[in-house]
Amino acid sequence: MAKARITVIGTGLIGTSIGLALARRTPRDYELAGYDIDGKRARAAKNLGAFDVAADSSAAAVAGAGIVVVAVPVSDVREVFTAIAPHLTPGAIVTDTASTKGEVMAWAAESLGAAAHFVGGHPMAGKERSGPEAAAADLFEGATWAVIPSATAAEEAVHTITGMAQSVGARPAFFDAAEHDQLAAAVSHLPIAISVALFRLLRDSPAWSDASLLAGPAFRDLTRLASGDPGMSVDIMMTNREAVLHWLRRFQGALADFAEVVERGGEEMLSMFVRTNFDRDNFILNPPVREVPRGPETPTASDTMWRMFAGGLYDKYKEALERGTTEVQRGEEKLKAKLGRDDSAR
Amino acid sequence: MAKARITVIGTGLIGTSIGLALARRTPRDYELAGYDIDGKRARAAKNLGAFDVAADSSAAAVAGAGIVVVAVPVSDVREVFTAIAPHLTPGAIVTDTASTKGEVMAWAAESLGAAAHFVGGHPMAGKERSGPEAAAADLFEGATWAVIPSATAAEEAVHTITGMAQSVGARPAFFDAAEHDQLAAAVSHLPIAISVALFRLLRDSPAWSDASLLAGPAFRDLTRLASGDPGMSVDIMMTNREAVLHWLRRFQGALADFAEVVERGGEEMLSMFVRTNFDRDNFILNPPVREVPRGPETPTASDTMWRMFAGGLYDKYKEALERGTTEVQRGEEKLKAKLGRDDSAR
Repeated sequence: MAKARITVIGTGLIGTSIGLALARRTPRDYELAGYDIDGKRARAAKNLGAFDVAADSSAAAVAGAGIVVVAVPVSDVREVFTAIAPHLTPGAIVTDTASTKGEVMAWAAESLGAAAHFVGGHPMAGKERSGPEAAAADLFEGATWAVIPSATAAEEAVHTITGMAQSVGARPAFFDAAEHDQLAAAVSHLPIAISVALFRLLRDSPAWSDASLLAGPAFRDLTRLASGDPGMSVDIMMTNREAVLHWLRRFQGALADFAEVVERGGEEMLSMFVRTNFDRDNFILNPPVREVPRGPETPTASDTMWRMFAGGLYDKYKEALERGTTEVQRGEEKLKAKLGRDDSAR
Repeated sequence: MAKARITVIGTGLIGTSIGLALARRTPRDYELAGYDIDGKRARAAKNLGAFDVAADSSAAAVAGAGIVVVAVPVSDVREVFTAIAPHLTPGAIVTDTASTKGEVMAWAAESLGAAAHFVGGHPMAGKERSGPEAAAADLFEGATWAVIPSATAAEEAVHTITGMAQSVGARPAFFDAAEHDQLAAAVSHLPIAISVALFRLLRDSPAWSDASLLAGPAFRDLTRLASGDPGMSVDIMMTNREAVLHWLRRFQGALADFAEVVERGGEEMLSMFVRTNFDRDNFILNPPVREVPRGPETPTASDTMWRMFAGGLYDKYKEALERGTTEVQRGEEKLKAKLGRDDSAR
């Protein structure tokens, strides 16, 4: 019985956190390999216990790997796909963690093609700090892990990735690429824009030396994302520009509405604050959960596939994936039905 | 030697936290009294160890008090001033913790007049939770405590309040009322507007059920203030409306600038993110500090006055304050010079 290997390419905050979370699972019948273009970072991640092996090249890293997690900046994803494609084991599952999915899915189709089962991923977790030193085994605890299956990924591959996401404490939820990018623009990329614009407004004001003295937790929290990795912010704005600009315009409208309510004052203003307080508390206390869609014939498919992989049944599992390179049966339509209605607001 | 009394009116998050912080100081030669219009809250605060006495009325609470801290919502401040004025001990120092200062200073002049030394205050600390249960002795640790002396407060009274702020871990900094309200609008009230507008935009969107699933730490942090006390938000918008609307317009401009930079892309966009990352890290790692202005004849005036009060030298201290009801010597102009230049941006 061959031992399964899971490889992470890119040992920054996310990649190293995945390694740490997978490393602490017991029993653990898989080997963890990490690779980073900066060898120091890969060795640092290995020393932190995230990986058993710090590989010297992406080709060596993916050799024999059943799962490859590409956790590099979105601007490097295409190059990594091209570099690893010739070295992938037949039936390997490739996933990623990039913040935007439209271009990533196209690059996967173009560069990986039939060489692998590609299942896009985006764990909704992060910090303003980057690098392996900022990584934590519990980074994904309770977080949503967006899963975006490619049209050619076998159902078993999809279930393996949702199982892996669950095993690091996250809650997988399916999205298609365009839907993901629109929603991420609203809840993840617009906040970056707000943080940066708010910080610059005050920092560039002649009032800064006095205002910064008065800046308490409110200002600090709202500008936290202004300390985020500049390269990641650039990548997001480059690969999801239209969606971000769309939500920026919508937010401008929301601010104008807010100003009007404040100008009118009275009951309407009070009711806006009361309702918002109630709705947000409800959102925090009862975070939304969406059950992972399960095929009727595989009631616990995610668990089963991941357990086969992680539980050392690698050969059996691998065989199934080598067979399953046909079009996914359930198809896009079936998935869409589960994703719910079109959203006229987007 | 009479024992000094410090009275806190309003035993919510801030009032109770002040009590807890003052209660743990050693040696402690003063009695702590708390009063709340809701007797249950005052008793809860006493049970938490914030106060020695839960008074039955504001009159009883302020009787014999050398310092009275009014920590009620700004909309109740005027009524509290009127209620306590006839019962204050001659030479008592009254301070407050309200989020806006323009109206508070006017109410103090009108209702307290010569009955007390009024020194406005605003600790830049808070939580989205309210009530005594949310209070913490370390709430003010490292926070700026804005101090706004009234024109009639004796210098000794001002130094006692800055000393008290320091003794709970805060850093006092002087502002005049109009300056304070403009700056607080920018760093404290605008963030509330942003949080509420962002939360409502997504919550009212048909995309909410999907978007909320993808909402990670970025969205949660940026909408934290939407869970704030609605009454406090209303008070802020009512007492500082023009300044908030001014900064909302400025922020709309900052968002438009951001959108333009993103549309143009390239080096300019990268440099915006890099510079912002650098500037914000610098702000967090080297928080701005302003030395408390000290008169040449009283090199450690804050310490001295507070120590006289808290160290049990209450009679000597009280006598000084009963004498010192003349116009403050240093005057507005001297203070302004220390506050620094006018800010054309405001």
